[in-house]
Amino acid sequence: MIYLDNSATTRPYPEALTAYTEVASKIWGNPSSLHSLGSQAARILEASRRQIAELLGKSAQEIFFTSGGTEGDNWVIKGVAFEKAPFGRHIIVSSIEHPAVKESALWLKGQGFEVDFAPVDQSGFVDVDRLAALIRPDTTLVSIMAVNNEIGSIQPIQAISELLADKPAISFHVDAVQAAAKIPRADYLTERVDFATFSSHKFHGLRGVGFVYIKAGKKITPLLTGGGQESDKRSTTENLAGIAATAKALRLSMENQAASASRTAKMKAVILEELAAYPDVTVFSGRENFAPHILTFGIRGVRGEVVVHAFEDYEIYISTTSACSSKAGKPAGTLIAMGIEKSLAQTAVRVSLDADNDMGQMEQFLTTFKIIYEKTRKVR
Amino acid sequence: MIYLDNSATTRPYPEALTAYTEVASKIWGNPSSLHSLGSQAARILEASRRQIAELLGKSAQEIFFTSGGTEGDNWVIKGVAFEKAPFGRHIIVSSIEHPAVKESALWLKGQGFEVDFAPVDQSGFVDVDRLAALIRPDTTLVSIMAVNNEIGSIQPIQAISELLADKPAISFHVDAVQAAAKIPRADYLTERVDFATFSSHKFHGLRGVGFVYIKAGKKITPLLTGGGQESDKRSTTENLAGIAATAKALRLSMENQAASASRTAKMKAVILEELAAYPDVTVFSGRENFAPHILTFGIRGVRGEVVVHAFEDYEIYISTTSACSSKAGKPAGTLIAMGIEKSLAQTAVRVSLDADNDMGQMEQFLTTFKIIYEKTRKVR
Ligand SMILES: Cc1ncc(COP(=O)(O)O)c(C=O)c1O
Ligand SMILES: Cc1ncc(COP(=O)(O)O)c(C=O)c1O
Repeated sequence: MIYLDNSATTRPYPEALTAYTEVASKIWGNPSSLHSLGSQAARILEASRRQIAELLGKSAQEIFFTSGGTEGDNWVIKGVAFEKAPFGRHIIVSSIEHPAVKESALWLKGQGFEVDFAPVDQSGFVDVDRLAALIRPDTTLVSIMAVNNEIGSIQPIQAISELLADKPAISFHVDAVQAAAKIPRADYLTERVDFATFSSHKFHGLRGVGFVYIKAGKKITPLLTGGGQESDKRSTTENLAGIAATAKALRLSMENQAASASRTAKMKAVILEELAAYPDVTVFSGRENFAPHILTFGIRGVRGEVVVHAFEDYEIYISTTSACSSKAGKPAGTLIAMGIEKSLAQTAVRVSLDADNDMGQMEQFLTTFKIIYEKTRKVR
Repeated sequence: MIYLDNSATTRPYPEALTAYTEVASKIWGNPSSLHSLGSQAARILEASRRQIAELLGKSAQEIFFTSGGTEGDNWVIKGVAFEKAPFGRHIIVSSIEHPAVKESALWLKGQGFEVDFAPVDQSGFVDVDRLAALIRPDTTLVSIMAVNNEIGSIQPIQAISELLADKPAISFHVDAVQAAAKIPRADYLTERVDFATFSSHKFHGLRGVGFVYIKAGKKITPLLTGGGQESDKRSTTENLAGIAATAKALRLSMENQAASASRTAKMKAVILEELAAYPDVTVFSGRENFAPHILTFGIRGVRGEVVVHAFEDYEIYISTTSACSSKAGKPAGTLIAMGIEKSLAQTAVRVSLDADNDMGQMEQFLTTFKIIYEKTRKVR
């Protein structure tokens, strides 16, 4: 089996899984309990929070645990919009955001908020000048993802940070789900970023856990109210075992970030080079300012699903551009936003790499690709 | 160690933990992925959903996974209120709900909804006649918990179901977090119930997982929008391992429900009988229509925290009336709603039992209680 769908989900590190079972079986007290089983649990909770904060160069009070990237995105988009509604009801999100952001923005629209979608250029990068033009006096939030999940384009977070430098009333949110442990921290977590979303299962942690960075002093309405956990910002009995596993996975994956990036970049380069030889292949992910682990391309005239299933026959697992949209058979929103016509967008498949992968697998992938390319010739 | 804080959280069943690690390490594909790793994961997801539905006598399409009781409560309260806002903006929740419900209702109040809190009688039961009197033509939701988490009173879900029988426009939500696997299913999940909230870690499953029962055809606005998982009602990459573990834990705990109930009821009866001999003890949990596993009482003049810590010195773990409020030192909301004066309410401690506990532990508990009672005599 060759797993090349690491942007959909990653295999949990054994160390993370061990941390999970250790904590779940031994430290199962409720951190909110008054007694010592509670305090023991609370200590592990705070140690995990501190570790994550340190890895991100932030302080522990700025990390809030969630159930994943989707909750984080929904929370920030809705929570900031509601919190700041007395000051303005206009928000801006990019036109290539993950549905967790996009649908949250659209829901707000139904609630009387105004939403603008910042356009991207034909390579898949937010156009900072056009974003600037959308900003209004009543804009309260700008949300731009760090790494696009469909094609891997690294968004100009630095330039947007500069744009927003003299607009302190606007909250700046970055969906860092596909960026964490994949590109250097400084590229997605500048000083100007007020909120950032993370998901554990994308960096070899576990499903159902994530966290949000909230810059000290930034206000947000909770999405989950209740018992007052997480400094009253996000209630529910803490998933301590999942949190401990997440801290472990983030440490391991961030320690390996530079090495993984150079490893995946090399593998990506090999595939890109080879694909260039096929006249009917369109490559949607470039090299400059693209994440090292994501490579999206298509065979003209052949739908992405067909290619995914063809690879599957060889136990090679890739995906159409995102796991979420794949079943619905929708064309990639990012490609459409880039101005690519629908029939071409529908050819897209995504290869997402990990340090686990190796060159031998790339060779197998390419050999298999050659066969599939030939086989699909008749339908083209 | 004697753990008597099972309403705060339970120890995960080893079988549930094994299911978790098996799935997390072997079936880690994303159920939304198009390829066979995805379909394999999707099969386990649907098998777990089916199993839970069968245990509850419902159909699989009516079960939606969440991150726990708090998310379930927030989702139903906010999701139904927003969904039905065009038809009315009045909701009713009981005055003894868990903060996950109560705070959600209060948040809605800040958004222009009207909220009434249905009062309880002095024993801690919702007064059905007074609830009836609160219903208005624009009432869209009634939310009443099945078993109160602070004193264990079983709410009259059957009678409320009858009250609402001829009011189909009103959605009826039951927070069943403290009821599932503790009292018979029919007592909290009548045909009239439209929505019910469950949390895995309260029945020996895992933290960070729960589910909501949504009767077929009932509409609700999602709280987490995004990739469209859970029939587009609750997005995020599914926590498959946690879900499989939850199905396992629910099966084991529901199979044991009757036996556990009679076992805990006997232990509770022994404590109640003995406590009756202490003149300065007030018992807040009765016997009739109270859950078998929860027993709340206080020593007059002695704050609950003091008693919790005194027991802790003997490695006996109990709690003030709820884990959430314990650190804040707030008196139990339920007792206040019952009309008990604040100073008496502040004496309350909760013993919450499980089938794991045994009579030997009850004897140790009572021996220790005798010592603590004597020791605190001087402060009374
Ligand atoms: C960019 C981005 N944001 C958010 C999410 C949602 O994360 P999760 O699956 O943890 O809810 C994903 C992955 O699905 C993603 O790729
Ligand atoms: C009645 C009730 N509802 C909701 C909850 C919240 O559940 P969770 O801790 O899974 O968020 C609890 C427990 O804390 C509870 O006792």
